[in-house]
Amino acid sequence: MENIKFYKYHGTANDFIMIEDRDKSIEKLLTQDMIATWCSRKFSVGADGLILLQEDKKSDFYMKYYNSDGNESSMCGNGGRCISQFAYDQEWIAGRSMQFMAVDGLHRAIIDEEKVYLSMISVPSVSRDGKAYVMNTGSPHYVRFDNLQEIDIDQEGKTIRYNSTYNSEGINVNIAEIKKNLVSMQTYERGVEAETFSCGTGTVAVAISSLLDTNQPNGQYEVKISTKGGQLSVRCKKHEDAFVDIYLIGPSVRVFEGILFFSKDSIALL
Amino acid sequence: MENIKFYKYHGTANDFIMIEDRDKSIEKLLTQDMIATWCSRKFSVGADGLILLQEDKKSDFYMKYYNSDGNESSMCGNGGRCISQFAYDQEWIAGRSMQFMAVDGLHRAIIDEEKVYLSMISVPSVSRDGKAYVMNTGSPHYVRFDNLQEIDIDQEGKTIRYNSTYNSEGINVNIAEIKKNLVSMQTYERGVEAETFSCGTGTVAVAISSLLDTNQPNGQYEVKISTKGGQLSVRCKKHEDAFVDIYLIGPSVRVFEGILFFSKDSIALL
Repeated sequence: MENIKFYKYHGTANDFIMIEDRDKSIEKLLTQDMIATWCSRKFSVGADGLILLQEDKKSDFYMKYYNSDGNESSMCGNGGRCISQFAYDQEWIAGRSMQFMAVDGLHRAIIDEEKVYLSMISVPSVSRDGKAYVMNTGSPHYVRFDNLQEIDIDQEGKTIRYNSTYNSEGINVNIAEIKKNLVSMQTYERGVEAETFSCGTGTVAVAISSLLDTNQPNGQYEVKISTKGGQLSVRCKKHEDAFVDIYLIGPSVRVFEGILFFSKDSIALL
Repeated sequence: MENIKFYKYHGTANDFIMIEDRDKSIEKLLTQDMIATWCSRKFSVGADGLILLQEDKKSDFYMKYYNSDGNESSMCGNGGRCISQFAYDQEWIAGRSMQFMAVDGLHRAIIDEEKVYLSMISVPSVSRDGKAYVMNTGSPHYVRFDNLQEIDIDQEGKTIRYNSTYNSEGINVNIAEIKKNLVSMQTYERGVEAETFSCGTGTVAVAISSLLDTNQPNGQYEVKISTKGGQLSVRCKKHEDAFVDIYLIGPSVRVFEGILFFSKDSIALL
């Protein structure tokens, strides 16, 4: 592999290296070390993850997602919004609506002028852990409502993620607070093992938890969520503790395109 | 300003956005907010600083250096090594040796296969603050020898940088340790107000302090220094507590080139 063309996108400060890999030839050359190096913020490009845009036989494309540690991971909602924007910007698809496969199944996306609407997997049920809500929105999430001002999210997240219930599989920990119809949240992400500015699947989990926690009746909702990286919203249909027709909605920004001067040295330096 | 071409370099994990600006037309368009946005790691390119490569009437080029907060700053040694490599890679200069102007005066640089040799300003005298050494190597530095394992550099650095002596001007704080001819160091940088993986002018300050602290006789020296971002070395001539012919030596890596999709939105998002 000589030089490699890439693009950098961010969705509410969740940032990704995007590479076109129609025929999966790049996937074959990638190693875990390479991805980890490229995602390293001071030695290389720096990103929360790397996403390959690949051909899929039954949908418009396949989203192949790697965490910044170089491992494949569970679904990333902001990454899903960014790859949809990327596929649109690269003219992979004819119009503004598309469907694509990811590790957790089929997603639909619509690009409007300023936002990307991304369908997320249904949540058939929500379980409880004390006062907290626990569910899988593509990735596993724990949501607790508390006073955000009094919380050290790194400390709190670590305590919960490594307790005996979640230690082996890991979980993403969200602390949220509701004030005047606006839900604010902070997320501790497993894999990163620290706070991140925004988490798409976590935003969906918080929206669902907020509807349950405020005892909303069955119906259609749009919940606005404030993350450290910006504003997102979640549309969904509630039926008891099942949620369907879920959409994650927010901006996606193409920041720059680049050519990486690939060399073994740059990896050895890490 | 529409799209803008840039390059990303790092010198022992001190990383910089490099832009060719021969006629200073880009400098005229830059604002502090723009630079701060571009240096922001999750929303944009991400870097410790931005450097413009500009024409200079009396030398090969001028190094215009901005901190990641968008302000012009004092000399950056790793930045000086990176811009020398950049000028060479861009074929601004005919050979492998050059001289350039920066905020602290004239520097000479030589590019060899794997390293950049950068001349640094002379240090006519070193003062003391208790057991610590204090000097200006292009930027002001405080150096203390201690057990690195027992030091919290962020905590220690903050305490010293904000004490009554240094509070108004600020100072860079280096804690160093000598073991078997290898000097290891950690740096708290003013401006960043946190630990950085490597600091060029700090490395020079630590090399000088190590020669004084071990009571070396006058003469020519090359001191190897280990930083969190990699290995550097410093050559210098010692005459009592004055140091001349100082060179900072280490690798400089061209990581990628990019085109930034400049928009007001991307700044408003920060």
